Amino acid sequence: MAQQKKLVEEITSMNEDFAKWYTDVVKKAELIDYSSVRGCMIIRPYGYAIWENIQKDLDARFKQTGHENVYMPMFIPESLLQKEKDHVDGFAPEVAWVTHGGKEKLTERLCVRPTSETLFCDHYANIIQSYRDLPKLYNQWCSVVRWEKTTRPFLRSVEFLWQEGHTMHETKEQAEQETLQMLDVYADFCKESLAMPVLKGQKTDKEKFAGAVSTYTIEAMMHDGVALQSGTSHYFGDGFAKAFNITFTGRDNKLAFPHQTSWGVSTRLIGGIIMTHGDDSGLVLPPAVAPVQVVIIPIAQHKEGVLEKANGLFERLRAQFRVKLDDRDNSPGWKFSEHEMKGVPLRIELGPKDIENNQCVVVRRDNREKTIVSLDNLESAVSEALKAVHDGLYERALKNREDRTYTAKDFDEFVKISNEKNGFIKAMWCGETECEEKIKDVTGVKSRCIPFEEEQISDKCVCCGKPAKSMVFWGKQY
Amino acid sequence: MAQQKKLVEEITSMNEDFAKWYTDVVKKAELIDYSSVRGCMIIRPYGYAIWENIQKDLDARFKQTGHENVYMPMFIPESLLQKEKDHVDGFAPEVAWVTHGGKEKLTERLCVRPTSETLFCDHYANIIQSYRDLPKLYNQWCSVVRWEKTTRPFLRSVEFLWQEGHTMHETKEQAEQETLQMLDVYADFCKESLAMPVLKGQKTDKEKFAGAVSTYTIEAMMHDGVALQSGTSHYFGDGFAKAFNITFTGRDNKLAFPHQTSWGVSTRLIGGIIMTHGDDSGLVLPPAVAPVQVVIIPIAQHKEGVLEKANGLFERLRAQFRVKLDDRDNSPGWKFSEHEMKGVPLRIELGPKDIENNQCVVVRRDNREKTIVSLDNLESAVSEALKAVHDGLYERALKNREDRTYTAKDFDEFVKISNEKNGFIKAMWCGETECEEKIKDVTGVKSRCIPFEEEQISDKCVCCGKPAKSMVFWGKQY
Repeated sequence: MAQQKKLVEEITSMNEDFAKWYTDVVKKAELIDYSSVRGCMIIRPYGYAIWENIQKDLDARFKQTGHENVYMPMFIPESLLQKEKDHVDGFAPEVAWVTHGGKEKLTERLCVRPTSETLFCDHYANIIQSYRDLPKLYNQWCSVVRWEKTTRPFLRSVEFLWQEGHTMHETKEQAEQETLQMLDVYADFCKESLAMPVLKGQKTDKEKFAGAVSTYTIEAMMHDGVALQSGTSHYFGDGFAKAFNITFTGRDNKLAFPHQTSWGVSTRLIGGIIMTHGDDSGLVLPPAVAPVQVVIIPIAQHKEGVLEKANGLFERLRAQFRVKLDDRDNSPGWKFSEHEMKGVPLRIELGPKDIENNQCVVVRRDNREKTIVSLDNLESAVSEALKAVHDGLYERALKNREDRTYTAKDFDEFVKISNEKNGFIKAMWCGETECEEKIKDVTGVKSRCIPFEEEQISDKCVCCGKPAKSMVFWGKQY
Repeated sequence: MAQQKKLVEEITSMNEDFAKWYTDVVKKAELIDYSSVRGCMIIRPYGYAIWENIQKDLDARFKQTGHENVYMPMFIPESLLQKEKDHVDGFAPEVAWVTHGGKEKLTERLCVRPTSETLFCDHYANIIQSYRDLPKLYNQWCSVVRWEKTTRPFLRSVEFLWQEGHTMHETKEQAEQETLQMLDVYADFCKESLAMPVLKGQKTDKEKFAGAVSTYTIEAMMHDGVALQSGTSHYFGDGFAKAFNITFTGRDNKLAFPHQTSWGVSTRLIGGIIMTHGDDSGLVLPPAVAPVQVVIIPIAQHKEGVLEKANGLFERLRAQFRVKLDDRDNSPGWKFSEHEMKGVPLRIELGPKDIENNQCVVVRRDNREKTIVSLDNLESAVSEALKAVHDGLYERALKNREDRTYTAKDFDEFVKISNEKNGFIKAMWCGETECEEKIKDVTGVKSRCIPFEEEQISDKCVCCGKPAKSMVFWGKQY
């Protein structure tokens, strides 16, 4: 296997240098290329095809839950961004400013949207008059810009692709329900389509979104023990509605402010897939979003009948799966390595002997398990093997998270774990930002979330020893 | 009918004020809303759903012809934009400039992409080495910005959504073939999905794209006799390749420059749909891209069994069509007008008497023809009626174009027609830009294209009387 790998292109091993392994994989699996624009990536066909599959899947889930897509301008006038104070404080330091159109200086600067709450609110003020206009359940697929200093492909870039849902509701309860519903949609998608287990929980006040009343998050555990915030869902109360003067006539005939949510996931999920499932041979893709689910590699393809039969399998499988026939001139070993690098979930090998025996060899990318399959029931065997890959990936990722989840009862233990290990640390917290900041200052570790499923580890805050309010997952983050 | 219309919202009549009719329709059919950003529109759910249908259809056509989607950065460094001289001259006057990131002034200005030739070339220089890497057939769906002074929804806006294909080829012939193939894809799409007849032809040198060797266009005729350039396809030769130093080792083992194309259509197509098919009751949508193809309106819905039966039809039809059941409290007449305003191709009326007779009434939006249909073969009747609407729209649009196409043999005739009529003027041309400019200065009319199917109207240029080289379609344009 090691030899075959070298036939294609070497990548750094994970254990040697995880960060280097990551950038090797994104480049050599041809997911991205660097561009001439600092911090902006080029998403290449193979990477973009993963995003298209993510989009298609999520978009169907959004539509099933009653959401409609819209498109808002990519620019926000400075005065509009400033309407909600917490929001502008959070975002103004990291936006790109357009100051000139053609040869003329603009009378008001425009920022390139870092997120679109302000634009949606401006529109909602125009179109919401009565409770009959509610709820408004809008979503937008677009790119956004945040002027980050340090960037990494998919994980943190100046421009990235995402979706942003923005909804307005008659009551607080309905808006809160929407916030949690969309968090569930994200968590289900991560489990069912990305084979990525996530923790669901609430952000502390310190870590919540600029302008939100409460922020919920899904947190995933990467292979190296570093956490990835993979999606967030925010409840805003009526703060933006008041700032933007969005009112509606209620069932009681009185004017009221609607309650708001927003929620988003981005191309960062692709980074999550890479760091959750990848290995030293490259990418490992969950079948639901893999651009190629099955690659057919003919063995001794110059021999009579091999290519013809391989093509027959291709035609059979393409009706149900995303399948590719690799009939290029390179050696089978070279092809094996290339498609392993690209994370194709299943490989089918078909040679003269297989044809003689009316069979083929099916090889799983995740654990390299080989199975001899009769050509008579190829479709069902492929279908089962894809499901097995998905389940195998999920189980392995869950085990990684469990292995990397530690419990700290007091501050010394917390410091010791954070010095020695990467992973989640479960610990009790009094609810004070002061303790959260002290933990970060001493250990470099931030709160990830207050999980929906809390445990009673002790009754004291791990930092100050005062009575604990919540259990918190802490961890280093991408 | 006039009475019903007033039940919803009045729109200006086409003949009274076509421009006002257009803006009334885009607003009242809820396609767009104006935003706080000058010249940028908000595409509302109903408008965006049309765009999603256009995207889905075209994207499948692009993939069938071997193209792959990618995503390039939205910013172009000023130095990159300047690499190809004609291109920068064409675009620099109308770009938005980002000069600050956060609180810092950038060392180099970035423009928001007006089109992405320069970014694709920069990337192609990295990834093309050998003839084996060719062709590269990439496409991108994104938004672009052009700092237009005068804007109109869908037709000309500061930001718009589009796709831009950018391809690289081993030979001139292959690139030229691609250029024409994509023009055909656009023309077929306009005919088959938008019911919009288009002329295919080549732009004159004066009207071609900045930096192109040749530009091909599809030109549609709007209801008011004004032409709409609906899509373009460009052949670049190796000019950009030379400017960006993109080379490949050819089959002869020598270094060569690849040949390039680009092609695009935009949300402007939605403007084309509105002005090709719309009428005084509002929008008329071609079935292939209509968000709702069939609306079911129960008559006397309070009567026993009506809503239940209507819901049964809805469940039957939704398996094959995009269908909506309008069971709101408003009167049927009010609903008729609203769905006419929104251009829904077919309406199904179902009342107690219809139910008694196992029938329903199917009404076409384009000509308001009513047919009584047995519920036994509803699906096939709806399918046929949708096809009939499509064909009816196409025939009507073609007739409009034919009625509005005039022939001018000499300059006086040309001036007379252009003063009295809106439409295409067919006339011979010597090939000199001087004559093209004189025609524009005197009549305000520009060349639309040299059509692929030329006629020999005379042997003299309509302007200077010297020997003619080509027949040209001329016309006022959006």
